[in-house]
Amino acid sequence: MATIQDIANRLGVSVSTVSKGMNGASDISEEMRQKVLDTAVEMGYTSKKMRKEEFKRLCIFIENMKYKSQDEFGYDLILGFKQMAFRDNWSLSVVPINESFQQEEKYDTYMLKNGYSGAFLLGFTMTDPWMDQLPNTGIPTVLFDNYIRNNPKVGSVSIDNEEGIDLAVSYLRKLGHKNIGFLNGLLDSRVTEIRGRAFESSMKNHGLNVKQELVQHCFYNAEEAEKFTSHFLNNGATALICGNDLMATGIMQGCKKLGVRIPEELSIIGYDDLPISSFLEPPLTTVQQNRLELGKSGYMVLNSIINHVPISMTMLHPSLITRNSTAPLQKKR
Amino acid sequence: MATIQDIANRLGVSVSTVSKGMNGASDISEEMRQKVLDTAVEMGYTSKKMRKEEFKRLCIFIENMKYKSQDEFGYDLILGFKQMAFRDNWSLSVVPINESFQQEEKYDTYMLKNGYSGAFLLGFTMTDPWMDQLPNTGIPTVLFDNYIRNNPKVGSVSIDNEEGIDLAVSYLRKLGHKNIGFLNGLLDSRVTEIRGRAFESSMKNHGLNVKQELVQHCFYNAEEAEKFTSHFLNNGATALICGNDLMATGIMQGCKKLGVRIPEELSIIGYDDLPISSFLEPPLTTVQQNRLELGKSGYMVLNSIINHVPISMTMLHPSLITRNSTAPLQKKR
Repeated sequence: MATIQDIANRLGVSVSTVSKGMNGASDISEEMRQKVLDTAVEMGYTSKKMRKEEFKRLCIFIENMKYKSQDEFGYDLILGFKQMAFRDNWSLSVVPINESFQQEEKYDTYMLKNGYSGAFLLGFTMTDPWMDQLPNTGIPTVLFDNYIRNNPKVGSVSIDNEEGIDLAVSYLRKLGHKNIGFLNGLLDSRVTEIRGRAFESSMKNHGLNVKQELVQHCFYNAEEAEKFTSHFLNNGATALICGNDLMATGIMQGCKKLGVRIPEELSIIGYDDLPISSFLEPPLTTVQQNRLELGKSGYMVLNSIINHVPISMTMLHPSLITRNSTAPLQKKR
Repeated sequence: MATIQDIANRLGVSVSTVSKGMNGASDISEEMRQKVLDTAVEMGYTSKKMRKEEFKRLCIFIENMKYKSQDEFGYDLILGFKQMAFRDNWSLSVVPINESFQQEEKYDTYMLKNGYSGAFLLGFTMTDPWMDQLPNTGIPTVLFDNYIRNNPKVGSVSIDNEEGIDLAVSYLRKLGHKNIGFLNGLLDSRVTEIRGRAFESSMKNHGLNVKQELVQHCFYNAEEAEKFTSHFLNNGATALICGNDLMATGIMQGCKKLGVRIPEELSIIGYDDLPISSFLEPPLTTVQQNRLELGKSGYMVLNSIINHVPISMTMLHPSLITRNSTAPLQKKR
C-alpha cells in the first residue's frame, strides 16, 4: 500500500504538504489539495480515517471489460469514479463478475448483504441476469453504456454515441468517401443498437446509401476483427469505422498481410482512443471516449440518485481525434 | 431586498445562526447552513461579499415561459439553478427575451459584452435566431428541453420525456382505455417532436392504434386547448393526455360547458404538476417535472462545461402523480 511519502515523491512536494492536503488544511491551495487527493486514490493510499468509515460503501461491478492496466478501457473509468468517491469519503470495492455469479444471487440481495449503498455497472450486456432485475431494484445504480427506463433508482452514463458515429461519418464524407463500412459490436448490447441506427441515419443525412454487406457485427477484439478485412475490401469499402480501437488494430493487421496500404487504399477510424491508438503504424484516427470524465460522471449520477435526485441519463460529448489512418479518397489507378 | 433578519424570521432561528450559515462557520450543522443559503437565495438576499464578486456572472435567458410567481413553470427552474450557483459564489441575472432581442445582437457578442461566463436558456423554440448560432458558440451554454449536437460547449437538461409519455399511456391502458388522445404542443419545439414520437411508440408497445384525429397540436394555454374539447369527444376519445397542466384545465373547462363528466366520461392527464394541479376539480393526474431539481441539474451541467467536462445531456426520471381526473374505462350505457 502506498504511503504519504510515496505520494509526496510522486508529486515532488513535502510530506507535510501531502498531509495538509489529506486533512483539508486551509494553508495550501485548493488545486494542490485536489492533486494530493487524486494522486492518493491513483496510488491506492487509504488513511486510518478512511478505513474507519468503511460502512459507507459503494461497489463497481465489471464484466466483459479489461481494467487492470492504464492501456485498458476500464482503467480510467474506475479511476475517475474512485477519485470523486474518495472526496466524499466513500470506500469502494471493484468486483469482477460474470453471468454465473449473477445467477447465484439476486442483485438486491447481494448489495444488501454486503452493505453497499450503490453501484456502478460496467460492461454489462442486455442478456445479463441482473439486467432483468434492474427495472425493479431499490438500490441506487448507475449503468455505463446501458439504459433502464422507469426506475428512479437507476441512471446511466455514456458518451453521445449518435454524435460519435456522426463525427466519424462526417469526417470520412468530407474526405470524399462514399463506400463507408461499419464493423459494429455484437448485437446483444444497447450501445451496438444505438451506433447501428446512428450510422444509418448519419449516412442518410450525408446523402449516402448504406450497403448492407458493409455493416458487420463482431466481438470487440483484434483477432475476430481481422477476419473481416477481405470481406470489407471485396465489397468495395474505401473507408471503415470500427466499434473500438482493438478491432481497428485487427483490420490494420489484416491489411498488412494482404498488402493493402493504409490510409491510401483504406481509411480506418477506431473508437475509444485507447493510449495505444497514437502508437499504431499509422497512428489511428478515432472517436474519443473520455473515460476519466465518464467515470467521474458515473459517480456524480450515482451520488445524485443516492440524494434522491433521480437522474436518468448523463451523456458526454465525444471528440474525433484525427491522425494518419485516414486520408482523402484516392482516384482508382 | 431581504435582510439577515428576514431570513432568520422565515427560518425561525436567530440572526447569529443565519450569519454563521452565510459565513460557513463550523459550529452549525451542514443541514442548517444549506437551509440558510437556500432561503437567502429564495428571498433575494445578497451580501457585500457577493456584490464585490460580480465579475463572476452567469445569465438565465427566458422566453415563452412564465416565472414570476411560484405557480408558474419557470419559477422553480430558476430557483433551483440560483440555489446551486449561489453556493459557488456566482452572481446571476435573469433576462427575459424574445425574437427581436435575439435579432439585434449575436449570442456570443451579447455574452462577452456583458461579461457572462455562461448561460441557461429556458423556453427557446427551434426557430429562435440564437438557436442557429449555438452549434458554433464558444460560450458554455445549457438548454432546457432542447438539444444541440456537436458542440462541446453546449449541454442540455430535461426530464426523460419518452418515459413521461410512456408513464401516462401505460397508466391509461391499465385503466382499460384504448381510444387515447394526445393534445401535444406546437410543432416548432424539440420536446413536442420527442413526445409525439414517444406517444406513437408507447401506444404501439401497448398494442394500441394511434388514430390520427386523436393527435392534435396546440399552443400551451387553457384558452386554445379548450377549443379542442369537442373534437376529441366527437372522435371517440375516452382518455386524453395534455402537453401541460394549463391545457388540461382548458379541456376540463370545455367538458364542464358541454356537461361531460370527468373522469367518468373522459379521463385527463396533464404534464408538469404545477401547484395548481392538486386544487383543480377534480384534482389532476399529471406527469411531474421536478422543476427545482431540473434547475439544479441545469447548473450542474453548466458548471461541468465551464470546467471542461463536456456534458451533452442530463435527463431526470419523471413521476406520474395520480389524482382523480382519471378512472377505469366505463362501459357505455
